[in-house]
Amino acid sequence: MQKTKISERLRKDADPIWKEIFSHPFVVELYKGTLPIEKFKFYVLQDYNYLATMMKNFSVLSSKAESVETMREMLEIAYLEATSEFKSYEEHLKKLGYTVEDAMRIEPTQMNISYVSFLLATSSLRTFWEGLAATLPCFWTYAEIAEFHKDKLSESKNSLYFEWASVYLTEPYHELVNKMKGLLDNAPIKYEKLKEVFTIASKYEYMYWSMAYNMESGLFH
Amino acid sequence: MQKTKISERLRKDADPIWKEIFSHPFVVELYKGTLPIEKFKFYVLQDYNYLATMMKNFSVLSSKAESVETMREMLEIAYLEATSEFKSYEEHLKKLGYTVEDAMRIEPTQMNISYVSFLLATSSLRTFWEGLAATLPCFWTYAEIAEFHKDKLSESKNSLYFEWASVYLTEPYHELVNKMKGLLDNAPIKYEKLKEVFTIASKYEYMYWSMAYNMESGLFH
Amino acid sequence: MQKTKISERLRKDADPIWKEIFSHPFVVELYKGTLPIEKFKFYVLQDYNYLATMMKNFSVLSSKAESVETMREMLEIAYLEATSEFKSYEEHLKKLGYTVEDAMRIEPTQMNISYVSFLLATSSLRTFWEGLAATLPCFWTYAEIAEFHKDKLSESKNSLYFEWASVYLTEPYHELVNKMKGLLDNAPIKYEKLKEVFTIASKYEYMYWSMAYNMESGLFH
Amino acid sequence: MQKTKISERLRKDADPIWKEIFSHPFVVELYKGTLPIEKFKFYVLQDYNYLATMMKNFSVLSSKAESVETMREMLEIAYLEATSEFKSYEEHLKKLGYTVEDAMRIEPTQMNISYVSFLLATSSLRTFWEGLAATLPCFWTYAEIAEFHKDKLSESKNSLYFEWASVYLTEPYHELVNKMKGLLDNAPIKYEKLKEVFTIASKYEYMYWSMAYNMESGLFH
Repeated sequence: MQKTKISERLRKDADPIWKEIFSHPFVVELYKGTLPIEKFKFYVLQDYNYLATMMKNFSVLSSKAESVETMREMLEIAYLEATSEFKSYEEHLKKLGYTVEDAMRIEPTQMNISYVSFLLATSSLRTFWEGLAATLPCFWTYAEIAEFHKDKLSESKNSLYFEWASVYLTEPYHELVNKMKGLLDNAPIKYEKLKEVFTIASKYEYMYWSMAYNMESGLFH
Repeated sequence: MQKTKISERLRKDADPIWKEIFSHPFVVELYKGTLPIEKFKFYVLQDYNYLATMMKNFSVLSSKAESVETMREMLEIAYLEATSEFKSYEEHLKKLGYTVEDAMRIEPTQMNISYVSFLLATSSLRTFWEGLAATLPCFWTYAEIAEFHKDKLSESKNSLYFEWASVYLTEPYHELVNKMKGLLDNAPIKYEKLKEVFTIASKYEYMYWSMAYNMESGLFH
Repeated sequence: MQKTKISERLRKDADPIWKEIFSHPFVVELYKGTLPIEKFKFYVLQDYNYLATMMKNFSVLSSKAESVETMREMLEIAYLEATSEFKSYEEHLKKLGYTVEDAMRIEPTQMNISYVSFLLATSSLRTFWEGLAATLPCFWTYAEIAEFHKDKLSESKNSLYFEWASVYLTEPYHELVNKMKGLLDNAPIKYEKLKEVFTIASKYEYMYWSMAYNMESGLFH
Repeated sequence: MQKTKISERLRKDADPIWKEIFSHPFVVELYKGTLPIEKFKFYVLQDYNYLATMMKNFSVLSSKAESVETMREMLEIAYLEATSEFKSYEEHLKKLGYTVEDAMRIEPTQMNISYVSFLLATSSLRTFWEGLAATLPCFWTYAEIAEFHKDKLSESKNSLYFEWASVYLTEPYHELVNKMKGLLDNAPIKYEKLKEVFTIASKYEYMYWSMAYNMESGLFH
């Protein structure tokens, strides 16, 4: 009898939160093509801080990797974020009428700061494996969201949202997610530690969509 | 003509947020003695995670201090947190009918995690000075809250809250705050960087009181 | 049948290096009381950098400790180094005609820099346990050296060296070493990883004595 | 009148050490083509640990870069080290009759450990700028060595050494060094701090050549 993979256990334990993510109005309307453009703009502009943090986060993970092989994989992802991912981000900005400089001037919301701080604090002060487990939900939920809603997407007439979303259905994106899952499946630490940070990060994913849907940049929530 | 001290500029720039903190219902009712005990219990139990993080945070700051003198000061605060501060926390728990083990079992709220992650990520990945500036609002607002409401406190008939609050009016506590302010006044980095993290931390202070008042432990806010 | 403790295995595996340390001329002459005073002065002045690094090192270890209890123990040692250990260091300096300021002005040798860099890099970028294992040989060899040579010491007429050495025979010092050994005995990581850094640190201990005996501060060795 | 660039001041202040490096027998014999092959093999096998550390080092530097632009540059170098640099290293190994697995099994000498520990400790616990200044001498001395000895190289009949050395005369390599110098020229911190680590790293460069020339892997030097 085969043992359940760590990534599968994590996925199953986080299922109630992930279901809420799949049916979040921001997500549903985005894939249907009906999401108000202001909400999407708000989301994309906030994303600059998140993308920059991901580069930093994978740098930290790379610095803590135990083997040269894993270090190389982390650097590859970090470099990908810093180059092609950033380029594609810039193009989305342009279609929305913004430049990278505009995005850089946007103040991240307190919610945005919370999520990226959690990623960086976990990667910096816990083990490499906990850092990786905290990083995974962002990448993985985007893949499952796209899979879950791909019928809606194929009927969508909103080319802007279509282009944005279709990347998460591509083979290279799925390979990236699978590589991260495969690494985590070999984590030599207690499952409960991984579950803790994986769950927290999944909650942040949900909160991030809510933040974008409500365009929350104020102080008090 | 004397230059305005860095700590004074920070205090002035954060004033709108601090005013909201001083008049937050949790704070006002606590000092009047009318705060429902469940809310206070919720706050104290959540505080375990915060206190443990402060020990970690000052350890990180100590590891980044440039001079032996500053390192010693950071270690002194960290050790104080780990010993007398923790002892006094344990006594408060006891009066509420809890043990440290109870507090350790409490899951920190997402808001709590956000605040402590921000502190740890800032101290770990930015300069020592930005880490110190992020840490200051917690200590400093507690001192100003106590000063602001001390008349209410002296009339309060709630001995539990009275004891909890009176520590923030003591001379040693004020010296601690002043030491941290004095250090920050010599920070050799751009004011805007300090202001950024000081402001964010002040917002988290407000949000922490709200979290406690609403006893929010759920996912979706 | 009882399993051999991790600390015992480490001690045994490092025995050939430790034997060389026990019979190093600096060590032997120090305990006999015949060590030329210039060599001792050189050693004590170089020690400032080492002591300051130990404070930093325990700060890093504390920031990475997994439990509050272990964090508190690391902070206790760090604080001890920063206060009583530093005070006693200052007194030794004074007896040799130096002030702390003199010691601060001394440039650490390349060998000294190497050892402290190894400790800090290990504690910063590897696990807490490897950091602890790298830190242990310094504390532990000093205890065993004192034990090994205590007959010589009791006959020594050099009160300066006698006073310096006798601290390593005291109960509190042995408790400190035992606490660190006890922690390490529970390290949940592969023995080989611990052995690697423990061995390297033991070699640095030997090299440090040689550096002091040869009063090496030059470039090329 | 133009201010001297930081990199130029560093270069000038380290000149006595760099002159010793240029005339080190390992370097001279390597460029002349007369270096005994065992010494070269020893050097190349030890280099595995150094190369792996450089990947880690640039990961740490990237995680501490203040701007996205600088982070991207650090990641680019790290990724370069992890890919093309590593590939070329593998080819050199092959020509010498070794595989990467052979190199991985080689225990780094205490001197090798000292140098890489210094780089990692500096990058981890000091500012980004000091980390960069510590990293520069390795890259920069290799460029100047190649320039200094290029006449010897052009007459060398040792194709193995010729191929190894000629990379340091290429345009891309010089651009890499210039990019790092250019970054450092804008370092907003005290020159003395940069000079300290730049000098120490330059000394390690010299010691590394000596280690290779003497094939020192033993304990006691």
